[in-house]
Amino acid sequence: MEIVGELINASRKAIRPLIENQDAEGIIEIARKQVEGGADYIDVNAGVFIKEEPEYLRWLVETVQSEFDIPCCIDSPNPVAIEEALKVHKGIPMINSISLEKDRYANIMPLVEAAECKVIALCMDDTGMPETKDQRMAVAEPLINELVKKGVKPDNIYVDPLVQPVGTDDKYGLEFLNTIEALKREYPETHHMCGLSNISFDLPKRKFVNRVFMIMAIAKGLDGAILDPTDKQMIASIVTAETLMGRDKYCEKYLKAYRDGVLAP
Amino acid sequence: MEIVGELINASRKAIRPLIENQDAEGIIEIARKQVEGGADYIDVNAGVFIKEEPEYLRWLVETVQSEFDIPCCIDSPNPVAIEEALKVHKGIPMINSISLEKDRYANIMPLVEAAECKVIALCMDDTGMPETKDQRMAVAEPLINELVKKGVKPDNIYVDPLVQPVGTDDKYGLEFLNTIEALKREYPETHHMCGLSNISFDLPKRKFVNRVFMIMAIAKGLDGAILDPTDKQMIASIVTAETLMGRDKYCEKYLKAYRDGVLAP
Repeated sequence: MEIVGELINASRKAIRPLIENQDAEGIIEIARKQVEGGADYIDVNAGVFIKEEPEYLRWLVETVQSEFDIPCCIDSPNPVAIEEALKVHKGIPMINSISLEKDRYANIMPLVEAAECKVIALCMDDTGMPETKDQRMAVAEPLINELVKKGVKPDNIYVDPLVQPVGTDDKYGLEFLNTIEALKREYPETHHMCGLSNISFDLPKRKFVNRVFMIMAIAKGLDGAILDPTDKQMIASIVTAETLMGRDKYCEKYLKAYRDGVLAP
Repeated sequence: MEIVGELINASRKAIRPLIENQDAEGIIEIARKQVEGGADYIDVNAGVFIKEEPEYLRWLVETVQSEFDIPCCIDSPNPVAIEEALKVHKGIPMINSISLEKDRYANIMPLVEAAECKVIALCMDDTGMPETKDQRMAVAEPLINELVKKGVKPDNIYVDPLVQPVGTDDKYGLEFLNTIEALKREYPETHHMCGLSNISFDLPKRKFVNRVFMIMAIAKGLDGAILDPTDKQMIASIVTAETLMGRDKYCEKYLKAYRDGVLAP
């Protein structure tokens, strides 16, 4: 399971001032907590700053990587900002994200082609958000094929089927889970990367719903998620589900999580 | 999801004296808690009493059904005891269980043939406990086919693939989950019925592991389990997983569980 830490996002109240004030220590502290929680990538997003986004996004990458040997997930629809961030990024970055929306596709594809990167491929086109497994696969298929044609390795493609809230339609959870299964079957070399928290929109006990959904998605083959790695209950759920999927020799990771207190009630 | 309440089992310290003393009120109280917790069947087991088992098993069925309009899951390898219990059982009982073990098969099949009942079919033969999905399916297939040949409706067959502990072998969880998926695919009209708690044998935080495994099994298609229905955290996990599987119109069951306090932390 690959985890992208989602906390360094300018739309979050606690983060925006750190970016505005160029508070490197503050950003490093948030990154540190996520690295310690198990993040494999640190998402960086400065989307609320229209004019300064390129400058701030580059600064966020520099700041995170000044302290940690970890790749960033460069989170923007703005090709100028992504390009600026890529200039300073060390290692193989993840670009968040491309889709089949005409403008986004045209803007992001040249960056994806230019140098090796991982890329999140949203199951979305200009007709809007997908609802069913078939609608998602109808976008995923041409998008994956185009990326591969442009030279992107399947191993570098992270499909995001886009979670929709089960409170809006009873079948939205199942359609998502079935998409994960279908993607694993049809495109076994590609990966997934998505936020799951939208599933619980408008329901009480959202965090509990999110954890149950995460466990179900792992059972269906999910291998990547964007989340808050400092959420111990979520991490405990993921570690345990991975153990039960046969990916934890001698239950070592499970037992380590227990000893580290991650499994505390 | 069909739930068999497992608490009325003479091997439990709190239950044995209730049976010895023919404490009907005590038994009814345990049954009541399980009915309120959501049990669809009440398991009755008097296996620790060798001589008195038939008499006690019959008494347990009479006692439970004197108060509740609910079928029992008659839990014994002893055909004499099962037959005695069946004499007084109202409605369609569940027999727990038949297998491909030679003696058990010969003892239980005549009871299953004699009148309509539901029956738990253990994936076990005289070679011992199965380890892989293929070993389980190699027992399930002839057992299901024999039961159907004897006139049992597939809808009345509840296959138990037998959980083995992930602490013993990393792959035991996955092999079980893959069996659930294979059974749903190959025998879509049959059901499952099994205890899951063996998965966590020898691990810390067993109840947490059991809940995560339950959620994963539901994602793979599990539709029945033997468990303690008074365990609110387990029931909360099941209700939520069912909602996320698209089986809860307008999330009504989830919201009811929330209002009833089942989802409390």
